Amino acid sequence: MKLLGEKLRVVNVGVRLFYECVKAQGAEAIHVEWRPPAGGDEKLARLLEKLDRPEIDEANKKAVEKILAATPTLIDIKTAKDVIPGMTEHTILHSGPPIEYERMSGPTKGAIWGALIYEGLAKDQREADKLVASGKIKFAPCHDHDSVGPMAGIISPSMPVFVVENKEHGNRAYSNLNEGLGKVLRYGAYEASVIKRLKWMEKTLAPVLKDALKRSGPIDLKAIMAQALHMGDELHCRNVASSLIFLKLMAPHIAATGFGKKALGEVMKFMGENFLFFLNPAMAACKATQDAGHGIEHSTVVTTLSRNGTDFGIKVSGLGKQWFTAPAEIPKTLFFPGFTEADANPDIGDSAIMETAGFGGFASAAAPAVVQVVGGSPSVAADYTREMGEICLVKDGSLSIPFMNFEGIPRCIDMRKVIDTGILPFINTGVAHRKPGFGTVGFGVLRAPMLCFTKALKAMADKY
Amino acid sequence: MKLLGEKLRVVNVGVRLFYECVKAQGAEAIHVEWRPPAGGDEKLARLLEKLDRPEIDEANKKAVEKILAATPTLIDIKTAKDVIPGMTEHTILHSGPPIEYERMSGPTKGAIWGALIYEGLAKDQREADKLVASGKIKFAPCHDHDSVGPMAGIISPSMPVFVVENKEHGNRAYSNLNEGLGKVLRYGAYEASVIKRLKWMEKTLAPVLKDALKRSGPIDLKAIMAQALHMGDELHCRNVASSLIFLKLMAPHIAATGFGKKALGEVMKFMGENFLFFLNPAMAACKATQDAGHGIEHSTVVTTLSRNGTDFGIKVSGLGKQWFTAPAEIPKTLFFPGFTEADANPDIGDSAIMETAGFGGFASAAAPAVVQVVGGSPSVAADYTREMGEICLVKDGSLSIPFMNFEGIPRCIDMRKVIDTGILPFINTGVAHRKPGFGTVGFGVLRAPMLCFTKALKAMADKY
Repeated sequence: MKLLGEKLRVVNVGVRLFYECVKAQGAEAIHVEWRPPAGGDEKLARLLEKLDRPEIDEANKKAVEKILAATPTLIDIKTAKDVIPGMTEHTILHSGPPIEYERMSGPTKGAIWGALIYEGLAKDQREADKLVASGKIKFAPCHDHDSVGPMAGIISPSMPVFVVENKEHGNRAYSNLNEGLGKVLRYGAYEASVIKRLKWMEKTLAPVLKDALKRSGPIDLKAIMAQALHMGDELHCRNVASSLIFLKLMAPHIAATGFGKKALGEVMKFMGENFLFFLNPAMAACKATQDAGHGIEHSTVVTTLSRNGTDFGIKVSGLGKQWFTAPAEIPKTLFFPGFTEADANPDIGDSAIMETAGFGGFASAAAPAVVQVVGGSPSVAADYTREMGEICLVKDGSLSIPFMNFEGIPRCIDMRKVIDTGILPFINTGVAHRKPGFGTVGFGVLRAPMLCFTKALKAMADKY
Repeated sequence: MKLLGEKLRVVNVGVRLFYECVKAQGAEAIHVEWRPPAGGDEKLARLLEKLDRPEIDEANKKAVEKILAATPTLIDIKTAKDVIPGMTEHTILHSGPPIEYERMSGPTKGAIWGALIYEGLAKDQREADKLVASGKIKFAPCHDHDSVGPMAGIISPSMPVFVVENKEHGNRAYSNLNEGLGKVLRYGAYEASVIKRLKWMEKTLAPVLKDALKRSGPIDLKAIMAQALHMGDELHCRNVASSLIFLKLMAPHIAATGFGKKALGEVMKFMGENFLFFLNPAMAACKATQDAGHGIEHSTVVTTLSRNGTDFGIKVSGLGKQWFTAPAEIPKTLFFPGFTEADANPDIGDSAIMETAGFGGFASAAAPAVVQVVGGSPSVAADYTREMGEICLVKDGSLSIPFMNFEGIPRCIDMRKVIDTGILPFINTGVAHRKPGFGTVGFGVLRAPMLCFTKALKAMADKY
């Protein structure tokens, strides 16, 4: 009864309306954001409870240690078929989880046609389609071959690839070279100019860079990423600073190669004008890093987030090679002039490896300019980074964000936390035209689909 | 009497102690930071009142318009004696206000000896000193010859200089080329390695850059500065991003010059490894910008803040060529290993032209890493930028800071506001050893001395 006599002070949990009514009547009240675990799904909540076990915490600790200790280093540029495990003359790797040709998205098909033309295996789209129908071409996810590629993520046998070694654990990862924006293979364009650029990259860019790299020695990629976080990059959609730092490190050695001044000038211009040039080595760096934490029994750490333009797929450390998939969604996009929502392909690319490793949307606070693109502000950007901290196991102090008071980026997503809180990974991404042959239509943001995580939760509960 | 019966709520103005006592007794209170105009100096306050006139506001509006409209553009690299007005074979320009040789600081003297050795006018320090004693060498401030130089700011006749043109108003400004850190002329070192580097800059760096610049065409320096503010530079003590952007713009053209691969490699390495390389063109850009707003009758806009290592000097738009000086102070410094407060020279260099134009300490919020160096945090950095806004007439939206919600940097210091509020310009700076021959000892921060402003106020009141 004493309570009723006192001045009313209310802590409201759950539905906000009660809080607002209490406030409106002049009483003191605070509102606590709260949702029931697993969004109130009793079955999921019970599975979650089952996974609240010390051996899982131990396994996750191990995964975190390995991921934080990884030292991804650029050591070479080689031809894909010479270096990617399992790659043959007739293998085409693509982004995201496995998918049959028929279900592939427009940009993926366009990029495959382009790659077959580039390889000299087909003269045009019609021949390329026929070749695919013959069953001679083997498709497989980049991720299942120690590789990553942005957007369509097509890696064909003759393409030059960055060779990244995680010096700490000895594993390697590969990625193709970035073509720039506009009409480019990775966004599904396959016209003559696209093939010509790919040939120039193979015949000029790659040999010059390979030679320069021999002179410079191995390049510490994590060090570049750490610097770039202090210079406005989130390293997924904004690689402005990282690309410049990489150019700076390579430029004296490029100049020293002795290639002709035409080639040198072209290479410097190509690298300098492409603010996404460093995205690809950064992706390979994150792939080499995440792979170090993969395959640890009992671990619920998410080691892969990826999309093929049709499906979104994730992998979990303790669940081996299995993908857990759900339909890919369309990003909230800022379209380039002339394009609309109707042109956008669903989410596509291995580049969400950046978010998986704590960059991109997870490091939004480092690059408010990216959030601004889709109507956000610097404080909204900081909120995204804080929110992603809720589903991660650690903050990596060696990759800090000045405007979060030099706090580290959130790393190592725990699948259990995603389901418990209902907070889904936030991803920055390029957006492709849904038809083959068009290319880039804009930049956007979106969340990973919950279905991938609930499927993985069930598999985890089944397995252990 | 009603007041005494009510619950006590206090607004305290001035002395903080009253506020604290009221708080300690459990009453509601807020404290307002307030100081009497001109720090309570009645005479100054009266002079200030006199300057509260519409023709001054009008003149300042004109100065602001010209400063904001300036378009500083790098158009060439030339030899100092061929292009700096009034420069002769025996002229040595130095930073800050005018000063006799005897009163010059250690680093200034060291740099002068080095310059005379570099020019071939003296073999060593002893000969240099004798030459100076003979009266054959004419000393003058860079600022009085359309020029600026960081630290000792020595520009001698044979040195290559950046030629910056303010395309909007047609005026030009010049600066020397940046040597990097450590044992360098501008910090007063003059040993053989210093002279050798200056010769290399004259014989290799400058010709390569000049040739490249001919190929690239004029470079818009304000555009580079705007980008760099989004990448963690404040452009005085941190030119990391701006130097990389400049390298990126020049690299393809440097490669295309056809100079030998040794020279090209050296130039790329030198530019890439010096995170202050862009400081000098940025200073010339700010000089060309501020000069556009100088010489407007009645204007109280401060167009120059500069130091010669002994004196701090300012110039005011409406007060012509006159300098207003006060003793230079020692910055609050983070010392490089092995150095202490006892080694630090008082404040030195024309580089405070960056603050005069709204960069450096005024743009602290853009580069929290710089404030961190002297023990501050990102929120302290933002406070400095907000505080500098109190003494400036405008925020330049074309030079914005992401983490101030994309607000523009504060520009155009009004001398009246400095005296009225007691808020003194906040400056980031390099710190030189007080003895000639040593070089860099650290980075620091400090405030401009009030005496410069009160002297200028009196001159203004006398003149108008």
